[in-house]
Amino acid sequence: MSVSVAYLGPPGTYAEAATEAYLRTLPNEVIKEYILNPYPTIAQALQAVAQGEATLAVVPVENSIEGNVALTLDTIWQLEGLQIQQALVLPIENTLLSRASSLEEIKTVYSHPQPLGQCQRWLEKFLPSVQLVPTNSTVQAIKYLENNNTTAAIASARAARLYDIPILVPSINDYPDNCTRFWLVSLKPSPGGSHTSLAFSTHDVPGALVKPLQVLASRGINMSRIESRPTKRSLGEYIFFIDLEADASQPNIQEALTELASHTEIVKLFGSYNVLPIDQ
Amino acid sequence: MSVSVAYLGPPGTYAEAATEAYLRTLPNEVIKEYILNPYPTIAQALQAVAQGEATLAVVPVENSIEGNVALTLDTIWQLEGLQIQQALVLPIENTLLSRASSLEEIKTVYSHPQPLGQCQRWLEKFLPSVQLVPTNSTVQAIKYLENNNTTAAIASARAARLYDIPILVPSINDYPDNCTRFWLVSLKPSPGGSHTSLAFSTHDVPGALVKPLQVLASRGINMSRIESRPTKRSLGEYIFFIDLEADASQPNIQEALTELASHTEIVKLFGSYNVLPIDQ
Repeated sequence: MSVSVAYLGPPGTYAEAATEAYLRTLPNEVIKEYILNPYPTIAQALQAVAQGEATLAVVPVENSIEGNVALTLDTIWQLEGLQIQQALVLPIENTLLSRASSLEEIKTVYSHPQPLGQCQRWLEKFLPSVQLVPTNSTVQAIKYLENNNTTAAIASARAARLYDIPILVPSINDYPDNCTRFWLVSLKPSPGGSHTSLAFSTHDVPGALVKPLQVLASRGINMSRIESRPTKRSLGEYIFFIDLEADASQPNIQEALTELASHTEIVKLFGSYNVLPIDQ
Repeated sequence: MSVSVAYLGPPGTYAEAATEAYLRTLPNEVIKEYILNPYPTIAQALQAVAQGEATLAVVPVENSIEGNVALTLDTIWQLEGLQIQQALVLPIENTLLSRASSLEEIKTVYSHPQPLGQCQRWLEKFLPSVQLVPTNSTVQAIKYLENNNTTAAIASARAARLYDIPILVPSINDYPDNCTRFWLVSLKPSPGGSHTSLAFSTHDVPGALVKPLQVLASRGINMSRIESRPTKRSLGEYIFFIDLEADASQPNIQEALTELASHTEIVKLFGSYNVLPIDQ
């Protein structure tokens, strides 16, 4: 039986690198059952799983420089039944790919908005007058380099090899410790583990946020992350995404979840899972 | 004595509309002392105030659809001494500007990433195969419309009038209640008011977030908003931006701030101020 894995494609993206790094942790006889299917957007990769077209999706959740990936959070909240199986942390090494022979020739730089943000200072310093053009993926950016010596793309060294494009500058990250956290999600129940992710929306009343946080804080439950996203209904109404450093099966977490339900509008539990550090 | 106001320009942006709406709330004899100075980025508008070049800056903080404006939060955290004088809530009415006579002619749509996100579903439905190109401001997007019938821009009806561009579709927001909150900041002490904004970074230890939230929650202090931004040092280290529904001079807030200092790495208080709802 084959396992279809949806990711933000095309081949050569960081999402594909994360997917392949995950597969390398599996036993050899299992890996060959996995088929990688690129999707044009993160939302479509997640929808493919929710609709049963794909078994798994590998999606970026947050980057250490640029922060949360809003589209992933908004989509996982909207869809029903997605459960996190595993988190992966991938080091991100952005490189400047170009057919130009020097930086002076470059007039336009293409990349996904996240790598453009991750290399903002480098770009301001070394390419202050170029036009920066965002693309849907780092690999889509590479398509603009064909037969053109005035364009450059920011992507991985792996993508440079895959598409046979010269690396003009090997490492252009603004901050050395650049990592992206990915979630591996499916419709199966999550396996349990060291982390639990959940989200809740609140009623639009004063103190709506204090009570849910008190429910967690008063039990000494460690939150490793809290992100807010607008409900899109009205300014000041949010969905809160929270990561807990515990398994949801623990009695104090169970109690907290029950109590949380009475102080919030909707609570969605995305499951408990372990975090796997991976090399690119 | 003139008052120099920095905003994300050029003239015709939503930031300028917010600035002008604020000025209309002032007495007539005071308004003429204000000089509006457009800056090419939000970061440069804030830096102008921090360096004493401008007296005030008007910057967007969050939108009801797209969420926080990361560049504003990151820059106000990095600079020293900026204090919020006033918050403004501006309704956002996005329109499609073009010299094309019908949607069929349009091949490319330009706008700032926030309006592109706010009209994403409309664009997918009515212009599914056009190229979407982000620009630094909604007005920069309008520059691409000159002598061209295959391009469109998303901007305000006000910008359409100002630059004499036809409105092809008057209202293309995905969600009806589209508002942006702006902050008016300067180096002066903030005036006090119904809201207080602060931010803190935490040490990278388990439970780093629980303790500061407990300090606020245990006193029943209402948080109307909590946003996290990465410290950019390491994945999992955050700066938390919190809005409280109270004036910082209240004794329980004073106590909380003192206690907060002992449970966090750096705390920055951006001041207490009122919120002004405005019409475009």
